[in-house]
Amino acid sequence: MQASPTTGSLEGIRVIDLTRVISGPFCTQMLGDHGADVIKIEPPQHGDVVRSQGNKVRGFSWYFAQFNRNKRSLTLDLRSARGKAILWRLLEEADVLVENFRPGVLGKMGLDDATLRERFPRLVVGRINGFGSEGPYRDRPAYDFIAQAMSGFMSVNGPADGEPMRAAPPLSDMVASQNLAFGICAALVRRERTGRGDIVETALTNGLISMMGYLAAEYFATDQVPARTGNDHPMVYPYGLFKASDGDVAIAPSNDTMVERLLRALGCLELLDDARFADNAGRMAHREALRERLNAIIGTRRVAEWIEHLNAAGVPCGRVHSLRETFDDPQVQAQQMRLELDQGEHGRVPTTGFPVKMSEAPAAVYRPVPALGEHTREILAGLGLDDAAIQALHDEGVIGTLDTPATPR
Amino acid sequence: MQASPTTGSLEGIRVIDLTRVISGPFCTQMLGDHGADVIKIEPPQHGDVVRSQGNKVRGFSWYFAQFNRNKRSLTLDLRSARGKAILWRLLEEADVLVENFRPGVLGKMGLDDATLRERFPRLVVGRINGFGSEGPYRDRPAYDFIAQAMSGFMSVNGPADGEPMRAAPPLSDMVASQNLAFGICAALVRRERTGRGDIVETALTNGLISMMGYLAAEYFATDQVPARTGNDHPMVYPYGLFKASDGDVAIAPSNDTMVERLLRALGCLELLDDARFADNAGRMAHREALRERLNAIIGTRRVAEWIEHLNAAGVPCGRVHSLRETFDDPQVQAQQMRLELDQGEHGRVPTTGFPVKMSEAPAAVYRPVPALGEHTREILAGLGLDDAAIQALHDEGVIGTLDTPATPR
Repeated sequence: MQASPTTGSLEGIRVIDLTRVISGPFCTQMLGDHGADVIKIEPPQHGDVVRSQGNKVRGFSWYFAQFNRNKRSLTLDLRSARGKAILWRLLEEADVLVENFRPGVLGKMGLDDATLRERFPRLVVGRINGFGSEGPYRDRPAYDFIAQAMSGFMSVNGPADGEPMRAAPPLSDMVASQNLAFGICAALVRRERTGRGDIVETALTNGLISMMGYLAAEYFATDQVPARTGNDHPMVYPYGLFKASDGDVAIAPSNDTMVERLLRALGCLELLDDARFADNAGRMAHREALRERLNAIIGTRRVAEWIEHLNAAGVPCGRVHSLRETFDDPQVQAQQMRLELDQGEHGRVPTTGFPVKMSEAPAAVYRPVPALGEHTREILAGLGLDDAAIQALHDEGVIGTLDTPATPR
Repeated sequence: MQASPTTGSLEGIRVIDLTRVISGPFCTQMLGDHGADVIKIEPPQHGDVVRSQGNKVRGFSWYFAQFNRNKRSLTLDLRSARGKAILWRLLEEADVLVENFRPGVLGKMGLDDATLRERFPRLVVGRINGFGSEGPYRDRPAYDFIAQAMSGFMSVNGPADGEPMRAAPPLSDMVASQNLAFGICAALVRRERTGRGDIVETALTNGLISMMGYLAAEYFATDQVPARTGNDHPMVYPYGLFKASDGDVAIAPSNDTMVERLLRALGCLELLDDARFADNAGRMAHREALRERLNAIIGTRRVAEWIEHLNAAGVPCGRVHSLRETFDDPQVQAQQMRLELDQGEHGRVPTTGFPVKMSEAPAAVYRPVPALGEHTREILAGLGLDDAAIQALHDEGVIGTLDTPATPR
């Protein structure tokens, strides 16, 4: 059952992955990127629902690819007794179990928390759900959009004169994945010390709430809920989008020294002599007047010129990139934030790269995205099942097809 | 120098924290929440600049509190030779060093990567910067707003008919912190196996790019950049904000089964018989007509009624919470996502809670936010310095005040 060794930080850590859609798979992909052996368990017929979603190219979902490299795929009907027995055997040799069922579903499979802790004391169990497994909403159906709404995030996202706004990326899913990846590794660090695993849980809402940062602090301190301010900062000016001759430039001087650098670089340092603009309080009070003065200058040159000029002056600034501009950007390319997976008959498939860089043990593409059930035979053989036993499981419908063509290594 | 033992997952892990502002401190707070001994090193005179920023209550910045519980504070002038020597000694007994200087600054203090790896082979070095330490923008000044602009995030955030929009929370800072906390722990797991530390790096832009998820996949697959769609989903309908009689309700049925549940719960299942609304493609094409029909029904009852009714029917839905509503929510309270720190003379200070829940080794408030330099004497004494030596360091300006009143434990 052993996969080939990796050179990643988590080499030797085996992860049994029962998750589907986004929040769990993004987490287990992070573990796989860093060298863990991730066994993705999928329902025999169709697998993770995302396999059939999003834009497909040459019959292959690039949405699914975004969250499922560096995993092996095993089909298993977890509602069947024999399927559950195989899961149990896998857990005996695993370090980590990850699931994103609704609270209680895993218990109905016979793997309630008490059983998990008793029978697999070294196992780290990672769990993502919508609202947490305690509390009045524990059984509510969850979804990223709902977590964005209920966490308070939407109340501060969007234009000042518009409605509360969701962010298009599924932020609560992605944040929960990152939190869980951290928590799982922290629990593994503890296991080295104590010999014991743990149950690690994150919730979509809780993760986003923890991201409210200074907005939460502002609310706590003032008892006033923060207003939406669009691209303007609620407390400092100048800051935001400015109009160059061919587009917007984002400028964010973070303190008075930076503001002085900005105005000097724009050739209008004398604005600080105007009593209205002399300090941040004044600039906030006369924001529109100052915005007009700055745009009159910035509008005389192109975005690219300002970005070069202002960066040279030490002022944080940048272009508002479309995703095309982002992935075409030489810095993003230098950081390899666009990777290509070799998916064999499906061709080369781009995905986003690794945000965590390691010097000695860098993340790597150890294997492309698995076809459904691609590693079923290999994993079951590793458990000691012979060909006849595996075929019998197939004939009973406990596992899916055994004829999946392998994707390249 | 030893802090009292914690019961957290990272008990026994000592972190030397050179970070300031948001992105580093949020990461080291995550480590401290889970039991690491975090020594925050601050410039002697004023410390982390955030100590003097944001709303203050009873002389204490609640913004600073949001990112700095569970740490000890040591003042140290890292530009002085004696300050550097003390840092060096601290590193000899540390497991982790975290910094968020611009690339190269740590090297100018004598701690370039080669030296770190050679002299402290077991040390895990964690690093956050704006764009990564390789590539053409490595030396550019960085800032959350600029990372939001350049990562492509802003291009997909905001209303369909508006400008690209920043999210108010400093997403790129917070995401980088989470990525780094994961990476540091993954490197600690590897250290148990290999005996060697590593250098772990994250960048504000790279983290947000990795969050683009299916939007990146859509761009890769179609070569079309995703448009801003506000609260509407680009690919499914119904989904979004709907108008109840007393406010908005967020509803997100994720597939056809859910849509059927929603329409049944609304008492308008017959809409599926209308050819325009029979499948998702039709519903997307006739979105405004369907929105009108649904709002006509939803407008007849209050938000709270719909939330109870739709959740009971298994349809993901929720209220758009202000931050007040979020922290007053019984679920959020059950999950303890608002904590209070006992800051002694500064009173009780609320902060956001722990998004990662552990069963055996839960995160905890081991110590409140340290006053500037509060633990200077204790930490230096732990290095073997006697009172006279400590006083001499103070008189030379290498360390700051030694008279900071302790905050309660």
